[in-house]
Amino acid sequence: MIRIIEVGPRDGLQNEKVPVPTSAKLDFIQGLLASGLKEIEVSSFVSPKWVPQLGDVEELWPALPVGGIYSALVPNKKGLERAVALGVGRIALFTASSDAFTQKNINMTVAESLEVFRDILAEYGGWVRGYVSTAFECPYAGRIAPSQTVLVAQTLIDMGVAEVSIGDTIGVASPAEVRVLTQMLLSEIPAEKICYHFHDTRGTAIANVSEALEMGIRAFDSSAAGLGGCPYAPGAGGNLATEDLVYFLEREGVSTGVDPVLLAQASVPILKLLQKPVTAKAQLATLAQKPS
Amino acid sequence: MIRIIEVGPRDGLQNEKVPVPTSAKLDFIQGLLASGLKEIEVSSFVSPKWVPQLGDVEELWPALPVGGIYSALVPNKKGLERAVALGVGRIALFTASSDAFTQKNINMTVAESLEVFRDILAEYGGWVRGYVSTAFECPYAGRIAPSQTVLVAQTLIDMGVAEVSIGDTIGVASPAEVRVLTQMLLSEIPAEKICYHFHDTRGTAIANVSEALEMGIRAFDSSAAGLGGCPYAPGAGGNLATEDLVYFLEREGVSTGVDPVLLAQASVPILKLLQKPVTAKAQLATLAQKPS
Repeated sequence: MIRIIEVGPRDGLQNEKVPVPTSAKLDFIQGLLASGLKEIEVSSFVSPKWVPQLGDVEELWPALPVGGIYSALVPNKKGLERAVALGVGRIALFTASSDAFTQKNINMTVAESLEVFRDILAEYGGWVRGYVSTAFECPYAGRIAPSQTVLVAQTLIDMGVAEVSIGDTIGVASPAEVRVLTQMLLSEIPAEKICYHFHDTRGTAIANVSEALEMGIRAFDSSAAGLGGCPYAPGAGGNLATEDLVYFLEREGVSTGVDPVLLAQASVPILKLLQKPVTAKAQLATLAQKPS
Repeated sequence: MIRIIEVGPRDGLQNEKVPVPTSAKLDFIQGLLASGLKEIEVSSFVSPKWVPQLGDVEELWPALPVGGIYSALVPNKKGLERAVALGVGRIALFTASSDAFTQKNINMTVAESLEVFRDILAEYGGWVRGYVSTAFECPYAGRIAPSQTVLVAQTLIDMGVAEVSIGDTIGVASPAEVRVLTQMLLSEIPAEKICYHFHDTRGTAIANVSEALEMGIRAFDSSAAGLGGCPYAPGAGGNLATEDLVYFLEREGVSTGVDPVLLAQASVPILKLLQKPVTAKAQLATLAQKPS
């Protein structure tokens, strides 16, 4: 069985400047769910001061369509309180392999972030995933030793997270290093607790998925239309597009349960709202075959 | 040693409606050469009636910058006469695995095209490559049995072509089928005579290169900026972008001799002329790092 963890509504939207109304997010999530996607990270409990786009999580969460397995990002104990108050049953915690990266992003060292998580895990009874960003390379500190990523991942697992999501945050990795890191991770952590979060900034994401899949990894994050993580220009790849991931898996004979036409259509209204063109390759190919 | 066969000036431009002046093509080729690319398919001897964009090959060829290993497409004996008159030392012949495809594209069955090639090879003393298009799937006939592709490739090799370029013309293949076809090809044809021509229409091209590379294939076609083979929409992947290929190979530790910054810049004037945005992922990433 393969798991696709759709992160478009959270990771995809968090840095977008055009405000997306709650109703448009709900339509987007409904479309993703209708396409066959199950696990969706829908929002974040980061302070609305920092991420205004996701400041409506208290409105969004109770209105989510039935049938999905939803999660939301929790940055700290204040965020946890808000999540618990809403009855959120699945949360995600965010750290990285690189102190330079966490310092810039969450104003803590990696070790300090892990201490915060320890407190959160002591209090919280639900399902938790831990993001390990910059797992291969950090934009500030350069290449990351795989042992460093394994150490952070293993610490999270030892603390009790259900899974780690290993992120190629700046989209630089290629299969040879995925092979090395995966081997090292698998020697410490069961395959079913490892997920990869590849970015497609330089076109290597599907090759990396292919390598990880061959080594027994069965869970991948992706974002509909490749929304988010787009640091360069319109069309520049940030997040791996769910459309490309689904196309690849199905062509490899791995059934995803996702309808590619419904998936390709699900993000079109959001893209229009954000005034972004469709750029995900499999999405373009699918929309060209079945004009809506 | 790895070979990259740059097909942008021919395959990339042939279907573009905006006329590209010969001088702009020469600048493009000069830029590609300066980036470190060596083998470049620069034009075609197809009748200017069918492909007006490449009707200037008689002006282009004698003006090519020194230092490149240039080739041009030859469709028939008339084209061969023109090529020989210009002293062209390397030509490419075009057929496919699917009769339905060659009938629509060159108005012959595959067998008929091979007969034409037999005549050409009997007359021509230079280096010849043979394209085998729709090697995995045909837009009209559907999936192609790998044995069918192997048969066409082997026939070309037996006729005396120096190499075959195996094309995923509509960009549908994924690594599992690349593995199967490559194994079958390698049982009949030495690795050094096999080249792959992947399209990135659905985001699988680099994963396919990765698979073929692992199996011992050392030659890949690609097109600067991903020019050409773009049947859907701006941004839709057609040809595999040379920038993505070079990034992938270098990150895997396979030295290409290509400077990614010079490569990323080489196609920018042509893109401007064609009023196309930069969409190749590694090119976008490189241009963002080093604004020109």
